[in-house]
Amino acid sequence: MGTTAAVLGATGFAGAELLRLLEHHPHIEVVAASASSQVGRSLIEVYPHLPSYGDVSFVATDEAMALGAEIIFASLPFGESMRLFGAGCASRVVDVSGDFRLRDPSQYGAWYGTEHLYPEAVAEWVYGLTEQNREAIAAGTKVANPGCYPTAALLALGPLVRAGVVRPGHVTISALSGISGAGRAGGEGFDFSSANENARAYSVVGHKHIPEIEQQLGSLSRGSWTLTFVPHLVPMTRGVLTTCFAEASSSVLETDLIDLMQEAYRDEPFVTVTTSPETRRLAGTNRAEVGVRFDQRTNKVVVVAAIDNLGKGAAGQAVQNANLMLGMEETLGLTASGMYP
Amino acid sequence: MGTTAAVLGATGFAGAELLRLLEHHPHIEVVAASASSQVGRSLIEVYPHLPSYGDVSFVATDEAMALGAEIIFASLPFGESMRLFGAGCASRVVDVSGDFRLRDPSQYGAWYGTEHLYPEAVAEWVYGLTEQNREAIAAGTKVANPGCYPTAALLALGPLVRAGVVRPGHVTISALSGISGAGRAGGEGFDFSSANENARAYSVVGHKHIPEIEQQLGSLSRGSWTLTFVPHLVPMTRGVLTTCFAEASSSVLETDLIDLMQEAYRDEPFVTVTTSPETRRLAGTNRAEVGVRFDQRTNKVVVVAAIDNLGKGAAGQAVQNANLMLGMEETLGLTASGMYP
Amino acid sequence: MGTTAAVLGATGFAGAELLRLLEHHPHIEVVAASASSQVGRSLIEVYPHLPSYGDVSFVATDEAMALGAEIIFASLPFGESMRLFGAGCASRVVDVSGDFRLRDPSQYGAWYGTEHLYPEAVAEWVYGLTEQNREAIAAGTKVANPGCYPTAALLALGPLVRAGVVRPGHVTISALSGISGAGRAGGEGFDFSSANENARAYSVVGHKHIPEIEQQLGSLSRGSWTLTFVPHLVPMTRGVLTTCFAEASSSVLETDLIDLMQEAYRDEPFVTVTTSPETRRLAGTNRAEVGVRFDQRTNKVVVVAAIDNLGKGAAGQAVQNANLMLGMEETLGLTASGMYP
Amino acid sequence: MGTTAAVLGATGFAGAELLRLLEHHPHIEVVAASASSQVGRSLIEVYPHLPSYGDVSFVATDEAMALGAEIIFASLPFGESMRLFGAGCASRVVDVSGDFRLRDPSQYGAWYGTEHLYPEAVAEWVYGLTEQNREAIAAGTKVANPGCYPTAALLALGPLVRAGVVRPGHVTISALSGISGAGRAGGEGFDFSSANENARAYSVVGHKHIPEIEQQLGSLSRGSWTLTFVPHLVPMTRGVLTTCFAEASSSVLETDLIDLMQEAYRDEPFVTVTTSPETRRLAGTNRAEVGVRFDQRTNKVVVVAAIDNLGKGAAGQAVQNANLMLGMEETLGLTASGMYP
Repeated sequence: MGTTAAVLGATGFAGAELLRLLEHHPHIEVVAASASSQVGRSLIEVYPHLPSYGDVSFVATDEAMALGAEIIFASLPFGESMRLFGAGCASRVVDVSGDFRLRDPSQYGAWYGTEHLYPEAVAEWVYGLTEQNREAIAAGTKVANPGCYPTAALLALGPLVRAGVVRPGHVTISALSGISGAGRAGGEGFDFSSANENARAYSVVGHKHIPEIEQQLGSLSRGSWTLTFVPHLVPMTRGVLTTCFAEASSSVLETDLIDLMQEAYRDEPFVTVTTSPETRRLAGTNRAEVGVRFDQRTNKVVVVAAIDNLGKGAAGQAVQNANLMLGMEETLGLTASGMYP
Repeated sequence: MGTTAAVLGATGFAGAELLRLLEHHPHIEVVAASASSQVGRSLIEVYPHLPSYGDVSFVATDEAMALGAEIIFASLPFGESMRLFGAGCASRVVDVSGDFRLRDPSQYGAWYGTEHLYPEAVAEWVYGLTEQNREAIAAGTKVANPGCYPTAALLALGPLVRAGVVRPGHVTISALSGISGAGRAGGEGFDFSSANENARAYSVVGHKHIPEIEQQLGSLSRGSWTLTFVPHLVPMTRGVLTTCFAEASSSVLETDLIDLMQEAYRDEPFVTVTTSPETRRLAGTNRAEVGVRFDQRTNKVVVVAAIDNLGKGAAGQAVQNANLMLGMEETLGLTASGMYP
Repeated sequence: MGTTAAVLGATGFAGAELLRLLEHHPHIEVVAASASSQVGRSLIEVYPHLPSYGDVSFVATDEAMALGAEIIFASLPFGESMRLFGAGCASRVVDVSGDFRLRDPSQYGAWYGTEHLYPEAVAEWVYGLTEQNREAIAAGTKVANPGCYPTAALLALGPLVRAGVVRPGHVTISALSGISGAGRAGGEGFDFSSANENARAYSVVGHKHIPEIEQQLGSLSRGSWTLTFVPHLVPMTRGVLTTCFAEASSSVLETDLIDLMQEAYRDEPFVTVTTSPETRRLAGTNRAEVGVRFDQRTNKVVVVAAIDNLGKGAAGQAVQNANLMLGMEETLGLTASGMYP
Repeated sequence: MGTTAAVLGATGFAGAELLRLLEHHPHIEVVAASASSQVGRSLIEVYPHLPSYGDVSFVATDEAMALGAEIIFASLPFGESMRLFGAGCASRVVDVSGDFRLRDPSQYGAWYGTEHLYPEAVAEWVYGLTEQNREAIAAGTKVANPGCYPTAALLALGPLVRAGVVRPGHVTISALSGISGAGRAGGEGFDFSSANENARAYSVVGHKHIPEIEQQLGSLSRGSWTLTFVPHLVPMTRGVLTTCFAEASSSVLETDLIDLMQEAYRDEPFVTVTTSPETRRLAGTNRAEVGVRFDQRTNKVVVVAAIDNLGKGAAGQAVQNANLMLGMEETLGLTASGMYP
């Protein structure tokens, strides 16, 4: 028997993807899946695509917690992780919500519209952008998994910001997301007939993922950063693509930027530098593609990243982080290749 | 019998849409449609969705020109309009290619990669962004119809630039396009299995629509403008959405910006100011939706516009301009409403 | 001012399409639109794609009825039309529900699972498959508009059944529908992420449209007919395609069957005989495409029909029938061509 | 080093899927991939989603054959497998073309329009519908992998035909396919803008998969079978759904039919009996879903099966068969679960 795991909030899309990835994980065994709306139903009834879970049934979150699994994956509705883990938890936890991502609790209040209930607990949590925080994650017991947009944007901007080739200050990010980003209970505007053949911007001002990106860019550099960030919904199921526009800090050559990116990701198992990142072939994987261009005429560095919002943008990175926390090989359970077509 | 019209290049998507819009135009009658690859075939065979053209057959461009139609709609491959109309043409012409959009012929060479063959002819052509050039279009005989991205971007930015509320200089534009923007002979990457469930950026540096937008923004203001412009392909058939990021020129209020936009478009039959522009309900129409937000934290004005790339972004605006040139009611043949769902 | 019309149930997809088609109808004017869930909201707020209705607001059904419009289009939830019109109604009515389609009230009970409340009222209603019932519709005041599947299946089978070239008895029908067929409140399984990239059969046994098709086939011939009918959901917004398999009644030639179909639809403004019916180019129109093949090896006639489920399959045919009832040109308001792409 | 394998025709969709499945196969190692159009290019350049093949390049088919791999997967254009393997081959071969599926060579001529060049070779080949031919496949060295439609149709009908609960004679099959079924070089009608939002039937009479299904149904029973088979294209990338209509041979109960199916597939690792087969959650897997209903009113058994056309319908079943031929565990390399969403 492997390391025991509980998946909390297993009926959301990220929770379902966690169950899918863990189904064949060689050293982690799911012993409980919680889902308030499905207590008592068998996993296979709700998720016929995951036949291996035949005899497991959904339980309440309390019941799942009582089992004392060695690692907990939490994918709960807004605010529930804060309440559940704020006063401490004996297990290792990877939380995919935004509850423990911001180190400055006042930022939580400013962006989430409600005060953090356990501001002193935040220091215990490590920000789980694996490629930028690997040692701290491996040493930690509580990981705040990044949002999908921050994952893509930070994989794009991180190496450039660290190397100082883009000028600290303002960055503009335009992001595209598939409809699964709206979650399982999408509601009005997310039925097929409304979302199909449609493109639109949303949360044009004030998206909750902004402070998380600004914070991490600050961690990677000496500068401070402000973002204009606009996400868009496009008619596909999975996928996030972020296009980031930054000012070159001094005279640069496009080839040097590409070299810098390739150097940064040379040994990374899940990040590929490419001339044309795209989402399709990343669906179902923990992989990311990044590409950089330099627009000499306007002195702008344009860097694009693509991920699966439910993969590297949520469940995949959560498993990657759990592997690190548990001292396992980082790629366990995550080696599936993307599909084409 | 109405005004006689010829549609050149009628097998491309924009040409097909021109035929569709003109099919029921009350005062324009298509007397010839040219298509080099389909000469001799009947329109109804190629376009079974346009049954009214039953007895018309495709002819060669020369033959179509020889008929001396009163108005010519040209939707020809790159460079052909330049050769066809550069030495003059007795008919009124609306050209949907990029051959006569740039007033400075050296710009043509710089962006299109080949010298303009008739640099002196360019002055004869009027830039056909109807809402910003109505009088000149009505008085002109040669109209260079704007590209799809410029149409959306300029409808978004135009009123703000004219009013001086955004600072001249640099603007960033992120644009989304449906796959029909790649044209009928899309080729590799545009088959359904490759384009479906995919999002990607392309032409990240140096897209040909950039100088056209910069030129028109310059016309609308005293400043000079440079753009960083990145288009993306998303898996839908029709639709363009542009999200434009500009610096506020001074302290502004979001409500004032909205008022300004509403004022600018109050009497425009085809432009609606809305809180959430989206592409779906514009497919098949000549309409545009625009929306503006102000991000106080970063002093950025974010303005979004949605159109149908084949409608207001090509064939629709071409008919709108033709109506003006012919002294007709501007909305003739263009009153169809969008569909939902 | 034209003939006054009320649209009841105007927030469903069929109701919305009725408003779209009537928006530009030259002789019908919508004076009321009812929608229980939207009372008091303006049409333009709910349907920004229909700007002409700017000053109209949704009212309750009672209020709409009280206006005494000359023609009522009813697109109400199951059973409501029966209650509303069962005791009579002074206005002309086109009802798009199933409440008055079955002439034998016992069939209603058998297929709809509840007894008809006004069995004696059924005789007053004419079955509104226009091409097969034109005179009765023109002479009637109450028209029961056919379902989307019956419309396609009957346009496919009608001429063959009438001519006696297929053997009365059993017919198999496999039907495909876009997701809008599930209505606006699709619910679980109809969100984009669930319905996209998916195909499935539903109501494999006992679909409510079966008795309606059997009844009409009986009307067209001396035989009696039983159907095996299986509908499928496929990931597109609009469109119904029915593929019907019948036994040839005697030795036939495929060319004769094609001639028969062409003869039947020669003068029909909305039906085209083609070798390859498809849904895409019919979206938004009242048109149908039909095609017939003969499989000599198995003696089966295979006849395919394509329509827009919300067009000829619902709102389009309702307007066509209303035109007839009101003594107007049958095609008024319905001349828009389909789009390609 | 595992068993050596060559993949011939590796640029088609089925060939690409073979490479994807074999990439992580624990005991099979791809030593050559042939692709006439890509000779000399590296796999990773053509298939960036398969990073493990970094140092392998495409070769010509001759060169791949010369390596003498222990198992050959052939996914070549029409007729090429016949020429390549007709005179014998020392390696084990799984051929995904139709060249060796029909035991009666005269049938090949009748359905494929050209005579078989090696009629005597056909006897050497085993029909690779794994669940119905497991022992012969395990004992064989040449396997003719079934077509995608036959795979689904035979998994649906097989147990019923074997048990004699459906009457031998005529069966009607309506099938749906995603666009990837048209192959990589789909051509006109398969670009995104044409195939999206569209449904249509094709090959209404005489599809090449018919004799293959009839032959196998004959093998499973004492009767002889004729099919009316109509495939349809629907706008999704992967997936085949077949709905089969057969006459019940005597009085049956639906529950008995369901029991029969469950019994037939109880120990099958890749086939699930469900009330509602659907394609979405099977994409990328070797799994199939089947469901049966009985329409008492018409005495018809309706049985539906769903697969991934490139999985169980092509590459997945090829690997499953190869595993058997090589004496390996049948499920090796095929355990990935489907995705939702």
